[in-house]
Amino acid sequence: MAVKVAVHGYGTIGKRVADAISRQPDMQLVGVAKTRPSYEARVAVAKGYRLFVAGAGHPEEFAAANLPVAGSSREMIREADLVIDCAPDKVGRENAKLYDEAGIPAIFQGGEKAEVAEMSFSALANFDRARGKRRVRVVSCNTTGLVRAASVLAPAFGVDHWEATIVRRGADPMESDRGPINGIMPTFKLPSHHGPDVRTIYPELPIATTAVVVPTTLMHVHVNHVRLARPPGTTAEVVDRLRHTPRFHLFAEWERVGGTPQVMEFARDRAGPFRPDMMENVVWENGIKLDGKDLYFFQAIHQESIVVPENIDAVRAILDLAPDAATSIERTDRALGIPRPP
Amino acid sequence: MAVKVAVHGYGTIGKRVADAISRQPDMQLVGVAKTRPSYEARVAVAKGYRLFVAGAGHPEEFAAANLPVAGSSREMIREADLVIDCAPDKVGRENAKLYDEAGIPAIFQGGEKAEVAEMSFSALANFDRARGKRRVRVVSCNTTGLVRAASVLAPAFGVDHWEATIVRRGADPMESDRGPINGIMPTFKLPSHHGPDVRTIYPELPIATTAVVVPTTLMHVHVNHVRLARPPGTTAEVVDRLRHTPRFHLFAEWERVGGTPQVMEFARDRAGPFRPDMMENVVWENGIKLDGKDLYFFQAIHQESIVVPENIDAVRAILDLAPDAATSIERTDRALGIPRPP
Amino acid sequence: MAVKVAVHGYGTIGKRVADAISRQPDMQLVGVAKTRPSYEARVAVAKGYRLFVAGAGHPEEFAAANLPVAGSSREMIREADLVIDCAPDKVGRENAKLYDEAGIPAIFQGGEKAEVAEMSFSALANFDRARGKRRVRVVSCNTTGLVRAASVLAPAFGVDHWEATIVRRGADPMESDRGPINGIMPTFKLPSHHGPDVRTIYPELPIATTAVVVPTTLMHVHVNHVRLARPPGTTAEVVDRLRHTPRFHLFAEWERVGGTPQVMEFARDRAGPFRPDMMENVVWENGIKLDGKDLYFFQAIHQESIVVPENIDAVRAILDLAPDAATSIERTDRALGIPRPP
Amino acid sequence: MAVKVAVHGYGTIGKRVADAISRQPDMQLVGVAKTRPSYEARVAVAKGYRLFVAGAGHPEEFAAANLPVAGSSREMIREADLVIDCAPDKVGRENAKLYDEAGIPAIFQGGEKAEVAEMSFSALANFDRARGKRRVRVVSCNTTGLVRAASVLAPAFGVDHWEATIVRRGADPMESDRGPINGIMPTFKLPSHHGPDVRTIYPELPIATTAVVVPTTLMHVHVNHVRLARPPGTTAEVVDRLRHTPRFHLFAEWERVGGTPQVMEFARDRAGPFRPDMMENVVWENGIKLDGKDLYFFQAIHQESIVVPENIDAVRAILDLAPDAATSIERTDRALGIPRPP
Repeated sequence: MAVKVAVHGYGTIGKRVADAISRQPDMQLVGVAKTRPSYEARVAVAKGYRLFVAGAGHPEEFAAANLPVAGSSREMIREADLVIDCAPDKVGRENAKLYDEAGIPAIFQGGEKAEVAEMSFSALANFDRARGKRRVRVVSCNTTGLVRAASVLAPAFGVDHWEATIVRRGADPMESDRGPINGIMPTFKLPSHHGPDVRTIYPELPIATTAVVVPTTLMHVHVNHVRLARPPGTTAEVVDRLRHTPRFHLFAEWERVGGTPQVMEFARDRAGPFRPDMMENVVWENGIKLDGKDLYFFQAIHQESIVVPENIDAVRAILDLAPDAATSIERTDRALGIPRPP
Repeated sequence: MAVKVAVHGYGTIGKRVADAISRQPDMQLVGVAKTRPSYEARVAVAKGYRLFVAGAGHPEEFAAANLPVAGSSREMIREADLVIDCAPDKVGRENAKLYDEAGIPAIFQGGEKAEVAEMSFSALANFDRARGKRRVRVVSCNTTGLVRAASVLAPAFGVDHWEATIVRRGADPMESDRGPINGIMPTFKLPSHHGPDVRTIYPELPIATTAVVVPTTLMHVHVNHVRLARPPGTTAEVVDRLRHTPRFHLFAEWERVGGTPQVMEFARDRAGPFRPDMMENVVWENGIKLDGKDLYFFQAIHQESIVVPENIDAVRAILDLAPDAATSIERTDRALGIPRPP
Repeated sequence: MAVKVAVHGYGTIGKRVADAISRQPDMQLVGVAKTRPSYEARVAVAKGYRLFVAGAGHPEEFAAANLPVAGSSREMIREADLVIDCAPDKVGRENAKLYDEAGIPAIFQGGEKAEVAEMSFSALANFDRARGKRRVRVVSCNTTGLVRAASVLAPAFGVDHWEATIVRRGADPMESDRGPINGIMPTFKLPSHHGPDVRTIYPELPIATTAVVVPTTLMHVHVNHVRLARPPGTTAEVVDRLRHTPRFHLFAEWERVGGTPQVMEFARDRAGPFRPDMMENVVWENGIKLDGKDLYFFQAIHQESIVVPENIDAVRAILDLAPDAATSIERTDRALGIPRPP
Repeated sequence: MAVKVAVHGYGTIGKRVADAISRQPDMQLVGVAKTRPSYEARVAVAKGYRLFVAGAGHPEEFAAANLPVAGSSREMIREADLVIDCAPDKVGRENAKLYDEAGIPAIFQGGEKAEVAEMSFSALANFDRARGKRRVRVVSCNTTGLVRAASVLAPAFGVDHWEATIVRRGADPMESDRGPINGIMPTFKLPSHHGPDVRTIYPELPIATTAVVVPTTLMHVHVNHVRLARPPGTTAEVVDRLRHTPRFHLFAEWERVGGTPQVMEFARDRAGPFRPDMMENVVWENGIKLDGKDLYFFQAIHQESIVVPENIDAVRAILDLAPDAATSIERTDRALGIPRPP
């Protein structure tokens, strides 16, 4: 029987997680909770999702908009076997009490501090550790991207040192009140918080990160330099490892994908995934170069969607719905239309 | 039996038209022609489209990319009952000879001059005139948007005078080599060419247009001021007319759609249309205001997709596949997932 | 003897007004008031301006930054014959009490409502009305631009009707926390507030305005359509009127100034003005077109600086320092390096 | 007696170099050569520069624009003791023959390959090597920024390894035809060409660089990680070194300079430099962090102007006009208004 999952918070991540849950044969979407009516609430209703009023929201506002409401978020939680919290940063921590009261396990997003949960999660890295946990945190988009890459490189080639510069998008596409319009903003925390966040999953990984924010909405780009302990003989061997790992997408040079605009155009063009998203780490064959022990590579990370399949796998791990990570990943990706590696 | 349609040119418009053709029960996609291999060619192949080599393209390049090729565009045309030319501006005119040689009717896009065809076309305006024509031109995205609006307002309320300022996007999302990055570029042709282009369809419409180009990729926005000859008593009557016309999408104020970023987010969110596109004229209820005879309204136009359903209707008109415009529009929109007006 | 002018608020406008005051032979800058230390405060000190602590500011913060402070803004006001309020929108209204207490006249900026002052001001339009006033409001950048244009066109040719679409910059260059990054945001007030604001100066002008916000920081662009009552015979006569009016800058077609990026590049290149600003209305010869009674023209407005010379003239009008508008404008422009019309 | 310097090419760099030459007491500007009339040519004439017609330019076009012309660039060169070539990339190489024919030394810009000249130049690094040379190349903006930083760090602390990610602006402010508007474009050459270019000056420096292009016009930002051989005990010692080196500008945290928008605002605000430029390497005190041997720091590089003082110093070196680098740098910076280090 399908487990009942509630989605608390219905923004960039929440709406994708809800769509993803509703496509899993072994899960059932209880409903979604939102604070205010909006075009996103209208779409939720049009998709047949039950709409609950979150936190400080007012049922009257929904009524005025002719949006049927199924109750409060508290009521939603009562019906659920598990809740995925997709509230804005720091609100998740507050919500945790509700989940405890209801006595159900909860998944939090990477905008919350690691302490909100018993463990931080990424499917390729530590699926099994999440079995039976009460509180699990799916790490943020940038951390997920780095952890996935580490899951390939570290076991295969060893990592002596990893430097990543994270070129961050300034806002998500619909966050029209955020800048910068024209400028580059360094993140003055040196090294940035992403390295320590990766170590919530790989405590020993010698990674140091830096970050800047730039005027784009599409994707983050990671510029990586990794000193390998046991480098292969050729760049092609690295390319092959990535190509055969789930949730990596490689572009060949002849595809003329010059940067993130073409990547997201590809995401809109391809049939398959349930939304025009890029849930895979994006890597360019001509953007990988092994020079002795030094591996350079770019990867692009779709901040809106990369954590979506990870949330689904976290549900399966917590509730013991799959025998191992590979099986869960395969189920998730099939349901979401993410192509399997060749 | 389905008519065989070839798509010549596979860029922003061509790839959408091909997807749209392949969804019409009364049409069959012969294939698509492209000059060079690219991620878009890879997607075409993945979707099962037959790929032909256009114009100056080299089959060897496709072979090097492992992309199977079905022949030259000349061969594609030979198999078709009708061709839709989606080549870059001005190339369509050159291609016209090929279509004449093959003896089949052709549809051109609005980047070509009106003289390329016997008539300019927009489904709400002049569907029936296209029956049996050999060469039809679907007007450009901005002209289509204005003509659709005129198709509602002129018959209902009369138009004494129409001023539109067209705030144009600088580039399509994947045209990463085009600017401006930071600036506003006036179009120094005064009035702009859009007014005369509207008059290729409505010769008497007293419309004058001006244009500026701005640093965005998402949509154009039209700022309209129309002096009505027979104004209704209230703004609500205008809203109602638009709401009940196919290919108009209205946002209510409570939906919090502040501008084009939220419109395109909605397009990505909603289930229904075959792509994350906005093929409708987008209008805001709180962006329409009638003040005596003076009607002000904004509309947003998705430059990538608005002409796609028009191309489909043009096929039906030319080949006499539908009894009237309303029937064709309904078939097209159902196949493309464009919601019917209430 | 020079009159003593204090500048209260030291942001985009305040710092320019301070620089401008310090260049007028008949004026003396008492000092500038700022709430917090910043690079702008550091520059003020480097320029020798006395720095006062505004409103809720803390002297200790300035001390920690080694920035010498001359007292509170209240003390600054006490030394002044007149104060120019350049505080953020709506704070000026609060500050008004301070100026009344001190018994000195005050100039407010256009971000305040018209009611803050006895009159709204623009030098070409109503200089003499400001003589002896206690509270005068210099209208906002967009309104100043429209009023200046009306000051030329209305007396010469009569105005039957004026439509302006205002394409607004999203943020000033250093406002890196404001968007949109990629999108066009309509201003849903229809018509926009700019028309009524113009009528605080020209009560009879039949002007209607609309506005959109776009992702640029450089300038606003106005797209104007004016129905003239007594049109001249040629476009050239309109061009000539503008060319011979102070505070208009015309670009010829051969100068290849395609839009606002090139205008502001010119502002940085030319020697003359005391800052890389464009205090003039910018008009393109090939961006003006007379078609019978219909005049179309673009103008670009540098939101950061266009009101600066207006503030200076307002000082002279209030304190009766010049015999007429033309004399004040000439003095102001000479001191600021704004070229005289030919 | 002042040496006669001609400036061949009058774009972003050429116009700044011309302004800079005209401010040096020991130099005289022969004139500037330009291909086409434009607002920039008009400004040159207004500043009293003699205008020569470059390359394929047509004197008639200048005559039509009423711009007086003093001859061809060949004639300009004949009058000069030295020429600074500021032609577009790769044109300089072609121009080299003209300079040889005229028998005068020439300075080239970093857009040319190193082979165009006998040596690559940066004032802090190798001033003396340029004495008496016939052809000297001033390295590009990014290379100049890295070389200056290396000139401080390498002698003081030793460099074991240097990684720099260069976040590049997509276009100069007036290049309104260049993108991307919304996206991040990796530079697929790995490592990028900047490292080898630095080694044209410091052949032994172990530096590896990577680059991405982003949608901004203001400045480049370098994200640096340097493994020091002989690290000092504290971050403050590194800060002090930079602070006391010419052509470095440091911002303190209290100045609230969050990124490149505020840096360029500062450049426009400060009195001093002859243009609103930032000819110094820009460093943030809170953007420098020493962690054992690992030094992290950001620097911002104003691509339009950073090489301008370097060109001036190159003139002095080649023609033996100064006893040493320090003297030349001091003269240049005083003439250009670049503040001296404390």
